[in-house]
Amino acid sequence: MKKNHTVSLCVFFLLLLGAVSVNADDLMDKAKGLFKPLPAKAPDPENNTVTPEKVALGKMLFFEPRLSRSGLISCNSCHNLGMGGDDNQSTSVGHRWQKGPRNAPTVLNAVFNIDQFWDGRADDLKAQAKGPVQAGVEMANTPARVEETLNSLPAYQKKFAAAFPNAKQAVSFDNMAKAIEAYEATLLTPDSRFDQFLNGDSGALNQKEKRGLALFINKGCVACHSGVNVGGNSYQVFGAVEKPGEAVRPSADKGRYAVTKNKSDEYVFRVAPLRNIALTAPYFHSGVVWSLGEAVNIMAKTQLGLVLSEDENAAVVAFLNTLTGDQPEVTYPILPPENAGTPKPEL
Amino acid sequence: MKKNHTVSLCVFFLLLLGAVSVNADDLMDKAKGLFKPLPAKAPDPENNTVTPEKVALGKMLFFEPRLSRSGLISCNSCHNLGMGGDDNQSTSVGHRWQKGPRNAPTVLNAVFNIDQFWDGRADDLKAQAKGPVQAGVEMANTPARVEETLNSLPAYQKKFAAAFPNAKQAVSFDNMAKAIEAYEATLLTPDSRFDQFLNGDSGALNQKEKRGLALFINKGCVACHSGVNVGGNSYQVFGAVEKPGEAVRPSADKGRYAVTKNKSDEYVFRVAPLRNIALTAPYFHSGVVWSLGEAVNIMAKTQLGLVLSEDENAAVVAFLNTLTGDQPEVTYPILPPENAGTPKPEL
Repeated sequence: MKKNHTVSLCVFFLLLLGAVSVNADDLMDKAKGLFKPLPAKAPDPENNTVTPEKVALGKMLFFEPRLSRSGLISCNSCHNLGMGGDDNQSTSVGHRWQKGPRNAPTVLNAVFNIDQFWDGRADDLKAQAKGPVQAGVEMANTPARVEETLNSLPAYQKKFAAAFPNAKQAVSFDNMAKAIEAYEATLLTPDSRFDQFLNGDSGALNQKEKRGLALFINKGCVACHSGVNVGGNSYQVFGAVEKPGEAVRPSADKGRYAVTKNKSDEYVFRVAPLRNIALTAPYFHSGVVWSLGEAVNIMAKTQLGLVLSEDENAAVVAFLNTLTGDQPEVTYPILPPENAGTPKPEL
Repeated sequence: MKKNHTVSLCVFFLLLLGAVSVNADDLMDKAKGLFKPLPAKAPDPENNTVTPEKVALGKMLFFEPRLSRSGLISCNSCHNLGMGGDDNQSTSVGHRWQKGPRNAPTVLNAVFNIDQFWDGRADDLKAQAKGPVQAGVEMANTPARVEETLNSLPAYQKKFAAAFPNAKQAVSFDNMAKAIEAYEATLLTPDSRFDQFLNGDSGALNQKEKRGLALFINKGCVACHSGVNVGGNSYQVFGAVEKPGEAVRPSADKGRYAVTKNKSDEYVFRVAPLRNIALTAPYFHSGVVWSLGEAVNIMAKTQLGLVLSEDENAAVVAFLNTLTGDQPEVTYPILPPENAGTPKPEL
């Protein structure tokens, strides 16, 4: 009897194990069909071959506060590579302490997004890079003044010439943007536990995280948050099922409508990519939600018309935490010293 | 005749070579008596043993914008390690874009200065580190809020415990300052060409630079700018011989007088250390002079009552350029993500 009992227990556990393992395999197969592991290297951006020379220059420019009128604000100020590629602010603070209109999106893995900015108004990172440099509330500079600054510094002249060997005028605002794009295309965060899972390591996620992933798929989050960046690859109205609260979706910011002037694009935004989402609070374009759990509940409600149980919410959050990858290892660049020809900071 | 002529020419050049080489030896001997090459490692600051754990923590804190009330300003904002350890501003810009009263001194090699700040009001770097964090025009934070921030982040709790294994409360404002001091004590710039010269390599300086060094010694600059940091080791009245212009030495800033209340300390400042001086324009505590040549002329006039020829000025500037050392190679630290308990940015 005891033996029989043991045997049947064993059978039971084996069956259970089989069921779990079949489920896990199913889940992995499903996930592999919906997401893609982050590659070690991004494909070259359009019209911009990534070379070591461009990347080296782009890194300097990314950390170069003299791209701003004040000499105080660099790309890294709002896209801090030590803080998940953003600034942990509701909306960014720029020239003369002005507050920008939207939350700074992460620069990490941004090369995989369909377009850039929350409203997708830039086709790619080289177009994006030109925006903040000129925006009055951000770096408040002009292309001419940027070029004057860069031309005044022999070290930059040399590095632009090396990065753009065929250009008549290597130092240019356009090439600044191209170099920054080339650098940003290297800012990937591979080998998250979710990537390990997608690459076949079933043990990379624990049961709670797997349950979160299953919920993420089965509840419908994946309808928008899919692909290599777990989002970032489509546009959706924020409030597809239910209008979010005014603080979360301020009426005045109509999102992509400002770009296309199509009525149907009112309150449409680029779907947020969710890689490293645990590092990039606060959330949404308004940046008013600091808790990932709260953000998940808002999404479920406004986009899917669902109310998640506490347990479901915790599982989804646990899954989202597995999207944090290896952060880029960056050697802080040494920038060339100014000289008599370098435009002075304007505060 | 031709042969004889050649021979006498050779003798002439040999004599000349001998003369130059004797002079060079003299100069090197003199220089060795007045300056010290930068060591590879600084001695431990008082009451603060430098350990790898403290340095690792201190580096994170040095780059940590959440030490400021706004979450925007870190030590590195004004002491940018990619820009000679300062901010290339006349006077620094802090919380709510307020302008500070004095030019930010470089953090590089600062551990060798007699005291910290232009007026020497901090005895050492751990005392210094507490100043800007609390100053209303700089980071505008409070010790309690800093501790709340650090305590909210498990990664910091762990790192403080490792850095201060015997402390009852490892996470504290005092220990923050100690960790930053430990890190800053590693921010040295060894192996400048001047160091190579001091270490016996006569060829490390060219003739013009050697002439500049000789002038620097013989004209009397060395009376104040000596030692390992070529300055930074004494206090002197700015305007010993002749009062500088109002812009360069604003009447309202009486320097060390504010610290000691001694009449004799009016317009007394800590002598500027000159290492990496070519990287740290603008100059003086007022930060209004952008040209190193102009700064040299002002010093000669106001401190020594001398007018340098253009040629002399150029030689001294050439010498000062040899004080630029190897800049620290810094791997940009990854900072812990905020959570519900972390104080939010206050703008």
